Amino acid sequence: MEHNQRLIDGKAMLQRVDAEAADSVMASLHTIAPDVAKMILEFAFNDIYMRSGLSLQQRELITITSLLTQGDTADQLRVHLNGCLNVGLSQKEIVEACIHCIPYVGFPKVLNALTVVKEVFADSQK
Amino acid sequence: MEHNQRLIDGKAMLQRVDAEAADSVMASLHTIAPDVAKMILEFAFNDIYMRSGLSLQQRELITITSLLTQGDTADQLRVHLNGCLNVGLSQKEIVEACIHCIPYVGFPKVLNALTVVKEVFADSQK
Amino acid sequence: MEHNQRLIDGKAMLQRVDAEAADSVMASLHTIAPDVAKMILEFAFNDIYMRSGLSLQQRELITITSLLTQGDTADQLRVHLNGCLNVGLSQKEIVEACIHCIPYVGFPKVLNALTVVKEVFADSQK
Amino acid sequence: MEHNQRLIDGKAMLQRVDAEAADSVMASLHTIAPDVAKMILEFAFNDIYMRSGLSLQQRELITITSLLTQGDTADQLRVHLNGCLNVGLSQKEIVEACIHCIPYVGFPKVLNALTVVKEVFADSQK
Amino acid sequence: MEHNQRLIDGKAMLQRVDAEAADSVMASLHTIAPDVAKMILEFAFNDIYMRSGLSLQQRELITITSLLTQGDTADQLRVHLNGCLNVGLSQKEIVEACIHCIPYVGFPKVLNALTVVKEVFADSQK
Amino acid sequence: MEHNQRLIDGKAMLQRVDAEAADSVMASLHTIAPDVAKMILEFAFNDIYMRSGLSLQQRELITITSLLTQGDTADQLRVHLNGCLNVGLSQKEIVEACIHCIPYVGFPKVLNALTVVKEVFADSQK
Repeated sequence: MEHNQRLIDGKAMLQRVDAEAADSVMASLHTIAPDVAKMILEFAFNDIYMRSGLSLQQRELITITSLLTQGDTADQLRVHLNGCLNVGLSQKEIVEACIHCIPYVGFPKVLNALTVVKEVFADSQK
Repeated sequence: MEHNQRLIDGKAMLQRVDAEAADSVMASLHTIAPDVAKMILEFAFNDIYMRSGLSLQQRELITITSLLTQGDTADQLRVHLNGCLNVGLSQKEIVEACIHCIPYVGFPKVLNALTVVKEVFADSQK
Repeated sequence: MEHNQRLIDGKAMLQRVDAEAADSVMASLHTIAPDVAKMILEFAFNDIYMRSGLSLQQRELITITSLLTQGDTADQLRVHLNGCLNVGLSQKEIVEACIHCIPYVGFPKVLNALTVVKEVFADSQK
Repeated sequence: MEHNQRLIDGKAMLQRVDAEAADSVMASLHTIAPDVAKMILEFAFNDIYMRSGLSLQQRELITITSLLTQGDTADQLRVHLNGCLNVGLSQKEIVEACIHCIPYVGFPKVLNALTVVKEVFADSQK
Repeated sequence: MEHNQRLIDGKAMLQRVDAEAADSVMASLHTIAPDVAKMILEFAFNDIYMRSGLSLQQRELITITSLLTQGDTADQLRVHLNGCLNVGLSQKEIVEACIHCIPYVGFPKVLNALTVVKEVFADSQK
Repeated sequence: MEHNQRLIDGKAMLQRVDAEAADSVMASLHTIAPDVAKMILEFAFNDIYMRSGLSLQQRELITITSLLTQGDTADQLRVHLNGCLNVGLSQKEIVEACIHCIPYVGFPKVLNALTVVKEVFADSQK
């Protein structure tokens, strides 16, 4: 039954990080690759996110940095920028995290990320 | 004089993050591109690192995540893994940050980073 | 005349891999860089694809893996996902290939690819 | 006052490279991260672009190559393809620069860049 | 107990793909991050590699393509080039897979991979 | 016979860009993948380098920028930094090209490139 517990706990964690994304990610993968949705919940949001050693705020900061750095991740950034806000990071911390990356990745990737940040902040105000 | 202040403050910041690296980075760039050493101090370690909004621990966590994610950065990781320890992150937090990246970048980049982490932790014990 | 044979054979190969793309790639490059269209046919689809040692199914599997891994390649993935189907790979094999990449590149790039896979499969049903 | 001079000179340089972009970049960053706009002007367009040792034509050639190579940079390419034209590179030189990258990065990134090149050349004809 | 079964089956799979690597990967992660070794076995070599839909030969072909494409993966390539041979791919197929990537990633990454291929083939002859 | 002319002209071009590399690249590929050596000569150094529209100096500037930007290319950079010097670019232009990339790729990739630049300049003085 441990397997199912991984799924249940992973779902609860994704709900906490970004409840809206939880539903839309599941829905979009439903027909094409439902097992990937399961792996995201069991592996990413249970096995990884539930580990001790880092706070959820630290985890989300790491996540958006990795997404910003690899590029071509606007969709995933959208989920985790909401995640950042949901676990209690401030808008200022999020923007600063992007700015902090400039010396490591250059301006283009940071500008791409800030474009998504701007959308997410605008949506979260509604 | 503001320009010189940027350099002085940047030097102090790099000293704080990694005193040993401060000297070796300067030395290695001295003959080939001394202006780059100056930019690292003035722009990266003054203009960016001195900003408010994130703690030095958060900044170093972001830095190693960005380096791990882009790959081919063993030398820079070495500097900033020492930086992580110097600003007060625990060994556990550093290893957890690497593990947290697995769902976002896959195992190869995380294994590469952990190889450097292992070296740095071994050296820091001496 | 060998040169022209490379072009003729490359065209035939691209027709076989993705007939529709063959026309649209040519058309889109026609005004801006017709030589690039020629190189794609002569070099990629003749010199490389016509080599022995791998089946066309293996070649298309390698192609979509490389495109998925480098990111920012939705347009090229579209062509070669159709190519996969045209050379006889099953939908299951294509989705499995994407899933197999998760431990090597992480979820974001796989999710990006699956979004294109879903579109291509939907279009191919029409 | 040196600081302000960096900003003034950086603004003048960006005006020269791409006057239209100068305004739109400033505007888009205005609410979310005005300091990043300042860094682009002071660091990128003053500290870097104003250096001696390379002509502006060489600098823009380097810029579009770096953007093409890293991928996911259509927005930045748009600015700097206009920049290429504004500092006197010919359309032929720009297309050739993209073609020259094929052996180093493969076709997909070059095709992505040529799509933007085509748009920019069409717009510049109006 | 399912959890342990994942570990047991993952170990058996890695043994089959590359028995020597199985031991050295475990050993190298033992002190620094033993949980990562466990995840590699449970997630990568059980959850992913044990799936139906692709042969082990197809899986290893995909793996080396993804490693070649992302770069900075000489250590991982070494493991999976041996894996390719162990699951029955021929030396010719492996070299062809590298060559097939040239139009997609350019020559540098393919040359880097071929350097490792050459070492692995030389070692496997001993 | 056109095919052979491509090979002959490509060889002459690589001789001109970097005579020493011409021999060592051929030698290293001789046993593992001789066709790749042929493609480098015919496609890269004939079909691409022999095109009109850019000077050899512009081509080598583009080449090192693309190599610096993609990372994990120290071996190829070594060849083309020598190539830069051989086609008449000055040491100052080469270092400036690296510095110019800082705003686009960040410091780590530029520092990696400068390490190779330093070696190549030291060797060229002997």
